Amino acid sequence: MSSVTLSEIRTDRVQRRLDQLWNIGQVDGGGVTRLAYSDEETAAIEYIEAELDDDFHVRTDHIGNLFATKEPDAEQSLLIGSHLDSVYNGGRLDGTLGVVVALEAIQTAYAAGDPPTAPTLAVFRAEESSRFGQWAVGSRGALGQLTTEDLSATDQSNVPLWQAMQTQALHPQDLLEPTVDTDRIVGFLETHIEQGRVLDEAAEHLGIVSSIRGPVRYHVTVEGDYDHSGATPMNLRRDAIAGAAEMITTIESIGVDAAREGDLVATVGEFDTPDSAINKVCGEVTFSVDIRSNDESHRDAVEDQILAEIDEIATDRTLELSTTLVDRSSPVELDAELVTVLSSVTDNLNIPYRMIPSGGGHDAMNFQHAGIPAGMVFVPSVDGISHSPHEKTTDEGIREAVAVTTHTLLESSPTES
Amino acid sequence: MSSVTLSEIRTDRVQRRLDQLWNIGQVDGGGVTRLAYSDEETAAIEYIEAELDDDFHVRTDHIGNLFATKEPDAEQSLLIGSHLDSVYNGGRLDGTLGVVVALEAIQTAYAAGDPPTAPTLAVFRAEESSRFGQWAVGSRGALGQLTTEDLSATDQSNVPLWQAMQTQALHPQDLLEPTVDTDRIVGFLETHIEQGRVLDEAAEHLGIVSSIRGPVRYHVTVEGDYDHSGATPMNLRRDAIAGAAEMITTIESIGVDAAREGDLVATVGEFDTPDSAINKVCGEVTFSVDIRSNDESHRDAVEDQILAEIDEIATDRTLELSTTLVDRSSPVELDAELVTVLSSVTDNLNIPYRMIPSGGGHDAMNFQHAGIPAGMVFVPSVDGISHSPHEKTTDEGIREAVAVTTHTLLESSPTES
Repeated sequence: MSSVTLSEIRTDRVQRRLDQLWNIGQVDGGGVTRLAYSDEETAAIEYIEAELDDDFHVRTDHIGNLFATKEPDAEQSLLIGSHLDSVYNGGRLDGTLGVVVALEAIQTAYAAGDPPTAPTLAVFRAEESSRFGQWAVGSRGALGQLTTEDLSATDQSNVPLWQAMQTQALHPQDLLEPTVDTDRIVGFLETHIEQGRVLDEAAEHLGIVSSIRGPVRYHVTVEGDYDHSGATPMNLRRDAIAGAAEMITTIESIGVDAAREGDLVATVGEFDTPDSAINKVCGEVTFSVDIRSNDESHRDAVEDQILAEIDEIATDRTLELSTTLVDRSSPVELDAELVTVLSSVTDNLNIPYRMIPSGGGHDAMNFQHAGIPAGMVFVPSVDGISHSPHEKTTDEGIREAVAVTTHTLLESSPTES
Repeated sequence: MSSVTLSEIRTDRVQRRLDQLWNIGQVDGGGVTRLAYSDEETAAIEYIEAELDDDFHVRTDHIGNLFATKEPDAEQSLLIGSHLDSVYNGGRLDGTLGVVVALEAIQTAYAAGDPPTAPTLAVFRAEESSRFGQWAVGSRGALGQLTTEDLSATDQSNVPLWQAMQTQALHPQDLLEPTVDTDRIVGFLETHIEQGRVLDEAAEHLGIVSSIRGPVRYHVTVEGDYDHSGATPMNLRRDAIAGAAEMITTIESIGVDAAREGDLVATVGEFDTPDSAINKVCGEVTFSVDIRSNDESHRDAVEDQILAEIDEIATDRTLELSTTLVDRSSPVELDAELVTVLSSVTDNLNIPYRMIPSGGGHDAMNFQHAGIPAGMVFVPSVDGISHSPHEKTTDEGIREAVAVTTHTLLESSPTES
């Protein structure tokens, strides 16, 4: 077996690619906005395609995902990659790092030897839900997991997902059909920043991901009456902002309590008032709720409690309440064998690491759902910052993630067929 | 003295003008949006100008206010009117009714006789604060009460007030100079919908306004950290939405308590998140606070309490808090003599009415501040609805407001000079 030492890893090439991608979609807030199926996301994918050596065989599927391999005719392949879209005003590393590390690892592995299972670089579209409220669209689409309902989701300009897909992907085939041969794919490997503070605070170099929290998400609409702020007595108001504020305070409090009893986070991240003014009692508010846990029954109990308590608040205030389920995904355990391989490779390289659950959903999750073994490596998020222009990791983390991935490619043996 | 009976009042002409104005600035929400210094506001003023008889002398000042009188050379004049701008998705009557009633009363008074003091129709610009956070810009400007700071206020597109004024008014003179001769103006009379539920619930036909609540207004910005909603533990968050929600719940609660102890309303009408997403802990929120009372010391005590308590919440949550004073206006008692004239005219017409404080600020307030006697008549707001497409009053209320105004014009005697 060939081997690559840590000092041979070309982090300069990784950093140059991160720099180039950081220029695509720069916004005033200091970060990048490369939304799902935007021109900016397409430009980022085209940049990666241009970085490929000539002997890569490239395929873009009708969802717009990119697959690149040096061995298109291999009987089996190990997918490796992540995504290039971002949240609004997002950071330098989320998704992007996983694509760049994957490309570097594939190039390094071929330079050092002959990977026993042909690796395929995978760049999945639209992992972030910021634009359509739908996450991991690319990997779900590749695996045939999308529904017509998912495709009908619209963005703030009322553009449906299917239309945005066709505009950017230009492959107007049946968007519900899988685009990868799941019999041929023996696994999926993804590097990602942690997006939390655990590795950074514990001074670990890497995390091997054990499981991924499953989210349940709602849009909540609260309706009251628009009234004059100066002439409407306090006791005659049906104030949607005040009602929503009480609900959010309650959701936070339930979340804090539930986090003491088990694994749980609960977040109101969006708050919209379609028609507000400084001199009007507000008649309508929409906000989002995002509840996640590794423990599905704990999460679902919290969900029930939140829905019941906000309903009670609405009733007490004679406000109209409507809740729309946006997403419900089960938590998932990643592949035990891949976890073992990754751990032993990391051990052999003498890299300090820990097993860690993932707080965010990732494309890897959908492979595991589809019965394809998935593994993930986390690099630390400095100060736990994520989905922010201030996302940062260490050079060391990047170097070690490339090393672990490269060695995993060089050591992975073909599955018996 | 000439006299006009209630049956002679041409409410059909009033309704036709309200219908025409209701067509200017119609929006999807079902109401009208004629913001301060918008093309729609200008179009509404031009419509009223076109409705004037040929013998009106019209003057548009450099603030964009319209003044129209049949006796431009009279030594004294009684101003009468209101405004034509609206809130976002506003109603049919707010401001508009006062302009249309004023025009009808002037026409009816001249048809019936010879008003002893020459009336001047006044249409003031930009009474609503929805666009610039500055209210009654037109009447304050006419009276020389604007400051350079007021003129620098910007709208959501960062257009400063002075620029919007120049775009619509096309009179680039010194915007701080008064445009009316305060020695010549003996009073200001304004009809308006109540914007509350008092007259409607008491089944009164009209209200004679005794005083106007003074507002104090803030913009409050709460800053925390943007973080990943799935990967950031509850106890490590600096969540601006959750912090703002607790503040708003507190402001409402202080308002409810203070309304039991005295005259008071407190409102959070705006809530903005510049960069939010369903999967992000929110790092920044701006919301508005509007506190009003007839009792300035009660209001200021509540203001102090609100500022202290939201500061405490910010400190407890390690959030950054900044508060910007947007407006501070003292409550005002309207002119006692005009109140007496209006009451006696209304009595003589056998119209049921009550004395009432105004919850909203009005252009009339600024005349009283300038030492010019101001009087106001309220028509009922059906269900107390205001600043809403559902604003409504009764035909009876309109007819009686025109009658009271017409008789006041016919009975008002010139001030001794």
